[in-house]
Amino acid sequence: MDVQRITVLGAGSWGTAFAKVLADAGRDVTMWARREEVAARIRDEHANPGYLPDIRLPANLTATADAAEALNGAEAVVLAVPSQSLRANLTGWRELLPPDAILVSLAKGVELGTRKRMSEVIAEISGRAEHEIVVVSGPNLAREIAQEQPAAAVLACSDHERAVAIQHACATAYFRPYTNTDVVGCELGGACKNVIALSCGMATGMGYGANTTATLITRGLAEMARLGAKLGADPLTFAGLAGVGDLVATCSSPLSRNRTFGERLGRGETVEQAQRATGGQVAEGVMSCSSIRELAQTNGVDMPLTDAMHRVCHEGLDPREAGAELLGRQKKHEWS
Amino acid sequence: MDVQRITVLGAGSWGTAFAKVLADAGRDVTMWARREEVAARIRDEHANPGYLPDIRLPANLTATADAAEALNGAEAVVLAVPSQSLRANLTGWRELLPPDAILVSLAKGVELGTRKRMSEVIAEISGRAEHEIVVVSGPNLAREIAQEQPAAAVLACSDHERAVAIQHACATAYFRPYTNTDVVGCELGGACKNVIALSCGMATGMGYGANTTATLITRGLAEMARLGAKLGADPLTFAGLAGVGDLVATCSSPLSRNRTFGERLGRGETVEQAQRATGGQVAEGVMSCSSIRELAQTNGVDMPLTDAMHRVCHEGLDPREAGAELLGRQKKHEWS
Repeated sequence: MDVQRITVLGAGSWGTAFAKVLADAGRDVTMWARREEVAARIRDEHANPGYLPDIRLPANLTATADAAEALNGAEAVVLAVPSQSLRANLTGWRELLPPDAILVSLAKGVELGTRKRMSEVIAEISGRAEHEIVVVSGPNLAREIAQEQPAAAVLACSDHERAVAIQHACATAYFRPYTNTDVVGCELGGACKNVIALSCGMATGMGYGANTTATLITRGLAEMARLGAKLGADPLTFAGLAGVGDLVATCSSPLSRNRTFGERLGRGETVEQAQRATGGQVAEGVMSCSSIRELAQTNGVDMPLTDAMHRVCHEGLDPREAGAELLGRQKKHEWS
Repeated sequence: MDVQRITVLGAGSWGTAFAKVLADAGRDVTMWARREEVAARIRDEHANPGYLPDIRLPANLTATADAAEALNGAEAVVLAVPSQSLRANLTGWRELLPPDAILVSLAKGVELGTRKRMSEVIAEISGRAEHEIVVVSGPNLAREIAQEQPAAAVLACSDHERAVAIQHACATAYFRPYTNTDVVGCELGGACKNVIALSCGMATGMGYGANTTATLITRGLAEMARLGAKLGADPLTFAGLAGVGDLVATCSSPLSRNRTFGERLGRGETVEQAQRATGGQVAEGVMSCSSIRELAQTNGVDMPLTDAMHRVCHEGLDPREAGAELLGRQKKHEWS
């Protein structure tokens, strides 16, 4: 299976950085951007300064604001839109998807209301089988990858051959993709980590240091693994690049939007104030904490950190009270 | 088992911070400091400014430079000296240890030459059984604990009752100790993390960001778990506070000596230059990388990151070559 002609739908920072990786790996890449001016900058000036300032994009990467034109002849289609708008976007593109194209998901989240993982949403809307969808995850801060800093990633698909086809299409000297068959684990890791990053930001905003954030990361990893185990994921996945790797990168980088959003909450801002201050966007974790909490409750899994973040973001719980509550839990043995 | 009178041998930053925790938990604590002027400052001015500037120590914490005086009547003895000098120090104290005292180890490392974990060294020198020794580990940066920031820790002992006795002796509103019976896993986690922190510092010194350090942390965690599995540790330990927790705290904090030492190596300094620049001390990981490598080789375990760090620190390998070598390893599936 050889994939040469690839379309990336979405021109945010991760979509653009991943499109650059594919182009650097020698593929013909067409991006779709919602706004024509963004497409024009990418196409004519090889730049997307609104999302990746100071990054020069390769010449074999072009762009259009016309989805039909972008998708024409694609052998693989990369979905790079925010998780909560993936359903609406994909519904609009459904008729344009070339029937044999491999679908690749960059979206990380759990859909509000349906509690579906992104590959489940993609399968439902596109009518494809889940083994036709490849999920990308790992410690992949977009700006660092665009700067060609060395990074590893995971390509998860129950069909190993499709994962390998995408692996060949995105392997470069600076980007090392590994294959994995555990789609559930990789997607849950990617979704849960945003909530934990939000909590680490909150702790930092309250003045706490590395012991506290490391403790939040450890307990957060434990609760995502519990959810994963219940939903059929391989526990090893959470110890790998799509689990602890992605989690640590997101929680430790000042580039993470979830972390910086959490810092504002920790300094006493409301979700609305933090949203206004960050240009109207809410961080992914603000929505994911609710959908992951629903998923956990439906499956009878205890996720105290996710639950606390939901109550801080949506029920007005004071971050300090949330912290005291999490630390005050009676525990004697580490795993009891 | 109730422990009231506790002696802490060693007045570095972690020994002093842990002594403060014990005193805050209401115990009578006596520290031993090698230098009388340090003991006098602790005893008379409730301060140890050389290690913990701006921290006021509690009144029920006293200090002496006389080990016999310090150990008289102790119900628990906390060993808080560097791992590579623990053997020599403990040999000098052997005759002074009260026969029923619980021994508590704060030292993290593997002894050069013997390849022994710290509790094994303590058992050998003191003549005690291993179940009489409690190991403290977890995400515990000394300065943050001295500032009473919330943190969790693990107390590992094959005898649950002794672990619980120490748990009661050090539980405070800001310090939450959990018990664990996996001494091997907790000690290996604590030793290996210093080497990985050194590598993260090195990557940072070379200009790499969070994707790279998160990848090093993930691969480092995998290799410490491989070593642990071979030596009888519980794999769960590496997913917990003494594994990923301690590792993430050490690797992400600018307070970590191993990390800052590694940064100097990454900027091109030699071990000798970095040592001179940091007041003559070498970071623990510089020695541990060699002893852990010996332990891995003796047991037939592959630890490429630890091996690379040994060659950088002791065989003149260029950090950039080490990085290229680690990233260039041929891998297809994440766990193959």
